[in-house]
Amino acid sequence: MRVLIAPDSFGDTLSAVAASRAIARGWSAARPADDVRCAPQSDGGPGFVDVLASRLGTMRTATVAGPLGAAVDARWLLDDSESRPVAYIECAQACGLHQLGGRPTPRTAVSADTTGVGELMVEALGAGAATIVVGLGGSATTDGGRGMIDALGGAREAAARLADVSLVAASDVENPLLGQWGAASVFGPQKGADPATVELLERRMTDHNATLTTIAGRDISVEEGAGAAGGLGAALLALGARRISGATVVADATGRAADVEAAGLVITGEGKFDSQTLRGKVVAALTAAATAAGIPTVVFAGQVALTSDEIAAAGIAGAHAIVDIAGSVEVAMNDADHQLTRLAEQVAAQWSEGDVERGSRGA
Amino acid sequence: MRVLIAPDSFGDTLSAVAASRAIARGWSAARPADDVRCAPQSDGGPGFVDVLASRLGTMRTATVAGPLGAAVDARWLLDDSESRPVAYIECAQACGLHQLGGRPTPRTAVSADTTGVGELMVEALGAGAATIVVGLGGSATTDGGRGMIDALGGAREAAARLADVSLVAASDVENPLLGQWGAASVFGPQKGADPATVELLERRMTDHNATLTTIAGRDISVEEGAGAAGGLGAALLALGARRISGATVVADATGRAADVEAAGLVITGEGKFDSQTLRGKVVAALTAAATAAGIPTVVFAGQVALTSDEIAAAGIAGAHAIVDIAGSVEVAMNDADHQLTRLAEQVAAQWSEGDVERGSRGA
Repeated sequence: MRVLIAPDSFGDTLSAVAASRAIARGWSAARPADDVRCAPQSDGGPGFVDVLASRLGTMRTATVAGPLGAAVDARWLLDDSESRPVAYIECAQACGLHQLGGRPTPRTAVSADTTGVGELMVEALGAGAATIVVGLGGSATTDGGRGMIDALGGAREAAARLADVSLVAASDVENPLLGQWGAASVFGPQKGADPATVELLERRMTDHNATLTTIAGRDISVEEGAGAAGGLGAALLALGARRISGATVVADATGRAADVEAAGLVITGEGKFDSQTLRGKVVAALTAAATAAGIPTVVFAGQVALTSDEIAAAGIAGAHAIVDIAGSVEVAMNDADHQLTRLAEQVAAQWSEGDVERGSRGA
Repeated sequence: MRVLIAPDSFGDTLSAVAASRAIARGWSAARPADDVRCAPQSDGGPGFVDVLASRLGTMRTATVAGPLGAAVDARWLLDDSESRPVAYIECAQACGLHQLGGRPTPRTAVSADTTGVGELMVEALGAGAATIVVGLGGSATTDGGRGMIDALGGAREAAARLADVSLVAASDVENPLLGQWGAASVFGPQKGADPATVELLERRMTDHNATLTTIAGRDISVEEGAGAAGGLGAALLALGARRISGATVVADATGRAADVEAAGLVITGEGKFDSQTLRGKVVAALTAAATAAGIPTVVFAGQVALTSDEIAAAGIAGAHAIVDIAGSVEVAMNDADHQLTRLAEQVAAQWSEGDVERGSRGA
């Protein structure tokens, strides 16, 4: 049986690449005859570039400003196999929530900026990129992309430098820039903002939107995805970007459709498998593709917060939580790699082709 | 033979605790009959609290502001075995250069502050500390201790809260606050400051010194140690602190003198063993104590930048570099723990009592 292992990252605990390898190790140990293929996925957030790098392009590294100004080595990808080179940039490589040197606070919510993303775009332009795809998600910032614009030389200069470039905002976030569904209100709190700081960020981005409106010649703040990555989406849209689902960008670039069709079983996963999962992004897209092709899907996750009925209704053959085999959330997180391998081995040992309706959520 | 293993940290590569364990493992593998004792050391910089915790007090953890405002879990130590409790705080736990989330830059040199150190002092006061010892070194800051003073409620409030507290600045740094030997000029560059930023920091601390002079009733900027930890030393001195050598604080608190006298061999070490080492701090103090007691000293280090003659002249029986056994600086740093164990095992295997004058710097 060919097994396609295509998880998203498991939050901060395991990257998509690490998760796919951990699952593959466990699965192969129990079923060595299976033909196991790893195809880690991403929705544009952390892991976007690493996941793409396994299939295309050349990995580059640039030293840029991190979210609070410390220098970080950010990876980006240049695919020059076609006549018009494509650069893939991941905002979380330059302004990631995981790069703060600690947990987010009101102070970091205010001071984190997207300067490093702009510096990566300068690198990509210097390398001759005709298309720049920016993966959005996992950012520490709520600066409306102001740092990015400044790093490109300010609004006018940025627009001029990108005039002949095809720009893509790769994101599954649909939020607008401002208001109760905007970047500050919805994502500010998880970036450390308390209520007063959310208000401050909202005011700051409202002011900043005047600049974006000048660049774009229209008010982009209301457009879908303007609120992605703390408003970096809005700045990219203002500079002429199209928004494309991050999960779709990865799926297309890595030939996921062909992978799914050739598989006898699709395994996916993410940090927390809950009702939100079923509405979006990697796991839902993969499950839909597999179901359409008549191929069973198994989900591994750190935690599963769905009932057996909900899982079965989503067309998923089984959902298995690391926390159940690890015995505690602490072990599940601190020893995630090893525990996920154990879990995959256990599920593989019990797997029999045709047995696709167990819908079990336990290990 | 009793072997005392008392290294400093190996820069960012190995903590003193990790280094002592790595050496002990290797030594015991080759000479299982030896009575090996670990007594990791510190000069007040990173590792200060962990090193003390192996001998005294109870470890506490407080969530405080890190150098750039992200929240970090900082360890501090409360020793309430006597009637007047002593708190040990390590500034690198709250504003450490290693806590920036990347490498230092001009921006981090300006924005890093000591707020978290003040928050730790508030914790210590709340726990009833009558003495607060602050280990200095390894900070990302050049704020003259302004963040610390602000976290204590401002200059007047800080002075009032600490009026009945015995304050100790544990540091081996003798630099003044300002001028060509001051905190900005000497330590600013390693904290990311370029020349223009050094000037800015110097001006900012010159202004800030007016506040410190008001608190202290004298100009403390010229006093020894005022420039430690980006001028945090000056703020502590202004608040009535005595400066004591960090290495001495650790030596006294951990009963190092008795440990040395009971040993047949003293092993110490640090990241880079060079001419600067012989003038200060942990390795020099330990070598002096061992030599005075007629006990041979062996040094392990990441790199050794002294000739055999210089090593012998310093009264050291042997100095051995990880880089020599690892074959490259990269392996020496990435696999430091394992390589140090290998090196210690090799040296132990060749060790014979009485053989104290080899002065070899190779492995």
